[in-house]
Amino acid sequence: MSDRPTQYLSPEATNALQRASTATITTQLLKRGFRNTFLAGLTATRPDMRMLGYAFTLRYVPMREDLDLVDIDNTTSAQRLAVEAVGPGDVLVIDARNDTGAATLGNILAERILMRGAAGIVTDGAMRDTSALREIGLATYIRATHQTQSTARHHPADLNVPIGCAGVLVMPGDVVVGDADGVVIIPQAVAEEVALAAQEQELREEFVLEKIRAGSSILGVYPPNAATIAEFEG
Amino acid sequence: MSDRPTQYLSPEATNALQRASTATITTQLLKRGFRNTFLAGLTATRPDMRMLGYAFTLRYVPMREDLDLVDIDNTTSAQRLAVEAVGPGDVLVIDARNDTGAATLGNILAERILMRGAAGIVTDGAMRDTSALREIGLATYIRATHQTQSTARHHPADLNVPIGCAGVLVMPGDVVVGDADGVVIIPQAVAEEVALAAQEQELREEFVLEKIRAGSSILGVYPPNAATIAEFEG
Amino acid sequence: MSDRPTQYLSPEATNALQRASTATITTQLLKRGFRNTFLAGLTATRPDMRMLGYAFTLRYVPMREDLDLVDIDNTTSAQRLAVEAVGPGDVLVIDARNDTGAATLGNILAERILMRGAAGIVTDGAMRDTSALREIGLATYIRATHQTQSTARHHPADLNVPIGCAGVLVMPGDVVVGDADGVVIIPQAVAEEVALAAQEQELREEFVLEKIRAGSSILGVYPPNAATIAEFEG
Amino acid sequence: MSDRPTQYLSPEATNALQRASTATITTQLLKRGFRNTFLAGLTATRPDMRMLGYAFTLRYVPMREDLDLVDIDNTTSAQRLAVEAVGPGDVLVIDARNDTGAATLGNILAERILMRGAAGIVTDGAMRDTSALREIGLATYIRATHQTQSTARHHPADLNVPIGCAGVLVMPGDVVVGDADGVVIIPQAVAEEVALAAQEQELREEFVLEKIRAGSSILGVYPPNAATIAEFEG
Amino acid sequence: MSDRPTQYLSPEATNALQRASTATITTQLLKRGFRNTFLAGLTATRPDMRMLGYAFTLRYVPMREDLDLVDIDNTTSAQRLAVEAVGPGDVLVIDARNDTGAATLGNILAERILMRGAAGIVTDGAMRDTSALREIGLATYIRATHQTQSTARHHPADLNVPIGCAGVLVMPGDVVVGDADGVVIIPQAVAEEVALAAQEQELREEFVLEKIRAGSSILGVYPPNAATIAEFEG
Amino acid sequence: MSDRPTQYLSPEATNALQRASTATITTQLLKRGFRNTFLAGLTATRPDMRMLGYAFTLRYVPMREDLDLVDIDNTTSAQRLAVEAVGPGDVLVIDARNDTGAATLGNILAERILMRGAAGIVTDGAMRDTSALREIGLATYIRATHQTQSTARHHPADLNVPIGCAGVLVMPGDVVVGDADGVVIIPQAVAEEVALAAQEQELREEFVLEKIRAGSSILGVYPPNAATIAEFEG
Repeated sequence: MSDRPTQYLSPEATNALQRASTATITTQLLKRGFRNTFLAGLTATRPDMRMLGYAFTLRYVPMREDLDLVDIDNTTSAQRLAVEAVGPGDVLVIDARNDTGAATLGNILAERILMRGAAGIVTDGAMRDTSALREIGLATYIRATHQTQSTARHHPADLNVPIGCAGVLVMPGDVVVGDADGVVIIPQAVAEEVALAAQEQELREEFVLEKIRAGSSILGVYPPNAATIAEFEG
Repeated sequence: MSDRPTQYLSPEATNALQRASTATITTQLLKRGFRNTFLAGLTATRPDMRMLGYAFTLRYVPMREDLDLVDIDNTTSAQRLAVEAVGPGDVLVIDARNDTGAATLGNILAERILMRGAAGIVTDGAMRDTSALREIGLATYIRATHQTQSTARHHPADLNVPIGCAGVLVMPGDVVVGDADGVVIIPQAVAEEVALAAQEQELREEFVLEKIRAGSSILGVYPPNAATIAEFEG
Repeated sequence: MSDRPTQYLSPEATNALQRASTATITTQLLKRGFRNTFLAGLTATRPDMRMLGYAFTLRYVPMREDLDLVDIDNTTSAQRLAVEAVGPGDVLVIDARNDTGAATLGNILAERILMRGAAGIVTDGAMRDTSALREIGLATYIRATHQTQSTARHHPADLNVPIGCAGVLVMPGDVVVGDADGVVIIPQAVAEEVALAAQEQELREEFVLEKIRAGSSILGVYPPNAATIAEFEG
Repeated sequence: MSDRPTQYLSPEATNALQRASTATITTQLLKRGFRNTFLAGLTATRPDMRMLGYAFTLRYVPMREDLDLVDIDNTTSAQRLAVEAVGPGDVLVIDARNDTGAATLGNILAERILMRGAAGIVTDGAMRDTSALREIGLATYIRATHQTQSTARHHPADLNVPIGCAGVLVMPGDVVVGDADGVVIIPQAVAEEVALAAQEQELREEFVLEKIRAGSSILGVYPPNAATIAEFEG
Repeated sequence: MSDRPTQYLSPEATNALQRASTATITTQLLKRGFRNTFLAGLTATRPDMRMLGYAFTLRYVPMREDLDLVDIDNTTSAQRLAVEAVGPGDVLVIDARNDTGAATLGNILAERILMRGAAGIVTDGAMRDTSALREIGLATYIRATHQTQSTARHHPADLNVPIGCAGVLVMPGDVVVGDADGVVIIPQAVAEEVALAAQEQELREEFVLEKIRAGSSILGVYPPNAATIAEFEG
Repeated sequence: MSDRPTQYLSPEATNALQRASTATITTQLLKRGFRNTFLAGLTATRPDMRMLGYAFTLRYVPMREDLDLVDIDNTTSAQRLAVEAVGPGDVLVIDARNDTGAATLGNILAERILMRGAAGIVTDGAMRDTSALREIGLATYIRATHQTQSTARHHPADLNVPIGCAGVLVMPGDVVVGDADGVVIIPQAVAEEVALAAQEQELREEFVLEKIRAGSSILGVYPPNAATIAEFEG
């Protein structure tokens, strides 16, 4: 786990990603050829919070009765090891194969993750105790609520390997950004430039939006022609 | 586009449809043999608003890289032509093949549609910036949120042709009614009579509901027997 | 219908189930070998209310035009007989084959069910008038909203037979518990013991949660080792 | 079970249904207002055989561990009672909730059903031992193959009640016709007339098909105009 | 319809596409940036035949009772106009919204299409009479079999407009190639070069395959290194 | 990879598993508490062949443009490393997340796997060139055919880790058995005893089947009572 890249964003990029919408970020990624970066179908339990961190991945496979209908051992379970390993700046991203037939975590583990300073939790499966989860101050993104504990469906297999989450590749250390509309994954190699370009794009779009609100047509404005660009840059 | 029928509802019918629930309207349509008129699976971004207008349809087909990964031309893109063509009393209804793998519109275009006076937007795909969309005063119905821009998945093909939206046929000029529970499409030929019959039905149901709330059984009341009908009409 | 078991829970167990979360109850059921007891994919229309009662089942089959596009007879329709038969302590549980293509009940019948004192309604299909339904004080769980009346899709077949609801077996008289996170079915034979064990579990988990909130690791605490158990029991 | 209607078709209608395609039968049902009579998504294990009989229904609900992970009792299991009750002219139609996560029958029971003289088996779930099943001379229609025995997923609930099978209402005693393309359910009340009308339709279509094969356009021929009808009837 | 491009392939390219596998063609398209060209989920009714032609598109929308439960008029129905308009070298490609709840064509119309010399039929919905269809010598690709006639579900809307078929954009005049494994759409602008490049690729792969069959490792062979390329070209 | 367990089955167990049906094996696994061992939804490309071997697992995650739209390097790609590592007695089992939107392997790699002596291939995704694949003598199980190469959808992540395949846990070294009806996974720890018990069960079932074919009822025979058991054992 020690070689998972974190903290590589500059303060300026970090600041930019604390404000940019996930929509803007997907656009900057699309410009760079990355078409599949948004985690479709997830819901924010705390749409009032933003999330920014580095991916700490946890991979689940289907449960098997001899492995999972037994007492949980905190010293060997990949799930439990993950809970006690995440730290400040980390987002725990769980590959649950989009299977919502049982939970992937409950609120006791979520509270521990919060106490450890993690930036959030993302799962493409279900969580239990979602109503309790909403009460604690941890950005969390889930596909569904299921009250049955994870061992009824899932076996935690390993940590910090490349995973698929909601159909998107997540590498350990990728930048994970969440807002009220969902979660986007930014590959490490382009995170810095995407952050700065997103900030720039949002300034331009705010300018465009003001013109639209003032009654302008989209012609020459969105996308902007040379005159509009000059006006913006002036 | 000029021959799309609009404004054919009488003031009385318009008034009736500004109040009738979409449930009542589907019942009146069912009585006339129309079984499939409710757009299943869509969510109101503004459940506090009602929507009433005439369908302005926009049809998307799957994107293709040589057509859609290029600069958008407002003078040829069917999407952009639609945005600058809708007007007061129109509801923009988008056929996105129920595909939620990218957005169908974003908030800048939605704001322009609002500025043009349109009555609302309905898509059987996704929208981006849904949280921003909730802030503006435009009734909008979506299947999902996806932050990736529409060109990653959709190619706008044409305007004001018959479309399927959420599994329902929508003809240009059909009446579109939305409330907190969803959207119903009323074929033009029956819109006037359905509107008036819906108003009548709601009066009867309010009468029934008061009896139920007063402790009445449904027997003889729902559906009403002759005595109940006489009491209502008396 | 008269032989449907009800009221067999002791006051202590009833009290316990009025407080236990559905998550805790599924855990106690899992300990007893019942893996599939949570009704996945349903939403509470009133997440502020809890629900506790005995299952009164209603089974729908697909509609057929000669049976269902006719006037409803309250004296023969299984749906209507159910509405006038449920009473205090009953939860009406509807098997709609997870089909959300039309409603399974509307708000007039829901109000009558409320007036009869029932504890709630659960359907694995849709309801109409969901926004109106939210206004009345009846715990209700639905898969979706569809405004078209039930006869467009469903034929009510019989009452108080074993059904599947959201993929879970429901026997008439089974205990049904709902909270903001969903609904769990407790087989009659284990309901008393599950209730008491759930109460006990929640006390233990509250103790654990306080330790976690105070900064404890999960090691030795969740699951608890002998020392933690002794501390709890002390 | 004794009051399940069977053998009510005339010899002429029986003969007609032994030849008519399921496509023709759905058309005659559609003409009479029945839109939903074909069991979509099922595959014939013996496309070389036709099937004709009266529906003997068997209803499954989700399994529960205390009921189904025990020894099977042939004197109480609805599945086993059905196997020993079907007879000549019966088609066993199983409502498995379209759930293909385990089998609904295996080849030993299928062989017993064959020995009892039944006309076929239809399930909207899976069967096991499909390759063995193909070897025996019994028309069988399945959604999928799953090798796990039925008790892993299904609990047999009751016999000869109205069921849904592949989304279609099946009443005990309805006529069930199968050919290489699938299965259609004919409601008892219209079975006689549908049979005769189907026979008539096929004669007309054979006439039309010969004209098409001889190079005719469809104009005036399909559908036929007065001249074509006169030629056919002449 | 008259401006639909056809017959633009050279004899050499036509010849190449009569032999190249659809797998090879998708690879050549992918090299040119087209990622989504294969019609997933369709089955060949005649896997022994190949298909090559120019797309003649037919678009269906959801049926509506006042439009579709009436006598079919061959002079206005888009479906019937299409059947009498396709000719030699055309492939009729139907956009049925991937909806398999009724047929999109039956065998009488298919025989007429065959008589008119068309090269094949592709639908992303169902066909009826599939077993009869297999008997006639027309390459046909379907998603499923449904015996109910198309008007129960579909309304034919228009001809030779851009459509989506099985999730892929099909422009009128695009090249359509089918083999036992399925159907690929080649955009007109690249059809000539893709055809020739596919032919070249298959020669190379046959060379590679022979080495593999002779016991070679894939190292240096697949993909080929300079030595292998030289050996092939030598 | 070197520590993947193989060849641990006794000759007697190997022999038993070369004959036992996958149905029988799931029953023996169910008796031991393993409910989820059959890979649902896969099709045998060679239903005339049986397959028996030890699982060699290959895990795919979603593709990303910077990783997968580049030349394949046989020395680093997990897919290519797998192809050159499998050997006699191995079954290559691919976790493709049940995603059939592109192939997971094509026929050149399949031929190399055959040449290396592997016992078969199992994927929960698609394969390309399925019709060519049917020609070679390698047992292969697939969910679908898709002609687009794997890099359009999949990134090969690692080898011989626990995976989910078609919803079932597969550990490296688990025994994999396939017949015409599908594939079952036998956990290593119980493989020997399951093999021998399956053989025993099939002898009993053959005895039962003969009685059924001779006209016996299932009563006392299936399941067998003491008399039938005595007769079998006699």
